[in-house]
Amino acid sequence: MQSRWLLYPTTGALLMLAVVAPVPGAASDAARAATHGMTDQAHAGIERTMAAYNAALNGGDTAAVLPLYTETGVFMAPFSQSSIGRDAVRTAYDAVFAELKFNVKFNIAEIMQMAPNWAFVRTNSAGTTLHHSTGRTTSEANQELFILEKGHDGTWRIARYSFSPTNPPAT
Amino acid sequence: MQSRWLLYPTTGALLMLAVVAPVPGAASDAARAATHGMTDQAHAGIERTMAAYNAALNGGDTAAVLPLYTETGVFMAPFSQSSIGRDAVRTAYDAVFAELKFNVKFNIAEIMQMAPNWAFVRTNSAGTTLHHSTGRTTSEANQELFILEKGHDGTWRIARYSFSPTNPPAT
Repeated sequence: MQSRWLLYPTTGALLMLAVVAPVPGAASDAARAATHGMTDQAHAGIERTMAAYNAALNGGDTAAVLPLYTETGVFMAPFSQSSIGRDAVRTAYDAVFAELKFNVKFNIAEIMQMAPNWAFVRTNSAGTTLHHSTGRTTSEANQELFILEKGHDGTWRIARYSFSPTNPPAT
Repeated sequence: MQSRWLLYPTTGALLMLAVVAPVPGAASDAARAATHGMTDQAHAGIERTMAAYNAALNGGDTAAVLPLYTETGVFMAPFSQSSIGRDAVRTAYDAVFAELKFNVKFNIAEIMQMAPNWAFVRTNSAGTTLHHSTGRTTSEANQELFILEKGHDGTWRIARYSFSPTNPPAT
């Protein structure tokens, strides 16, 4: 394994080391398999954030999405300019939810903790999307790359998020 | 600034601290402005990798692209499944270059070093693309999120790379 997380002798790392017991039911086998050396506490916290994001997206609720982003978070949605910072992220999700109602599921392909306060998560999502303007429901399949940052409150939040469709373009 | 790079007392960090003199001409003002606390050595190394990727892409040269990826690197191109690992990355770029000839320029929006061996780079690219199958040249504009890992040889390589178009879909 070329990539691995080093436990740095910082306060944060020591705090994480203080909890090494597995968190029951916190991680799926699939996600666990693709997890690169990290504490169960970090793993569970990251999975909580990802599950909350999945729920907020399907709920079409910008107010539920926003706390999952850092203040300086960047949302990079296809076919639009990068949304930089929480105000721009709010505007972007408001626009998305005005048109689209999602019923999708994110599957975690891998989680890697790069530093005490930084991790990335790679996912695939699939499901259906109702387009309000046309009344049509389409199939969705996407690949996602999230960079998460752990805040001073111990919560992992989305710092940068880029995704794209895996299906061929509509013709 | 919520996010910052902490200098961990590891060998890697000490090595980087040993070179603190600015590298002349290594960083554009724009990239420097968006750089979050990191050494000039790391900054210059990351910019070298990004410039090499830009050149390899425009050169249409898979052999020049591959050494810029880690062995376990993942290339997440729109409208196709994630290419996981160097063999899959090779196949993906071969397919891209068989159809497309790029003349694009990457502009670095921000560089952040998250750990001694991990950084991310967010860019925007724009230019033109010649499609061999049709002979048509189209305009390109994309947003990119690179996660880079520094190898034991001190070279920064692409570990994960996701991008998407910023222009509306062709109709």
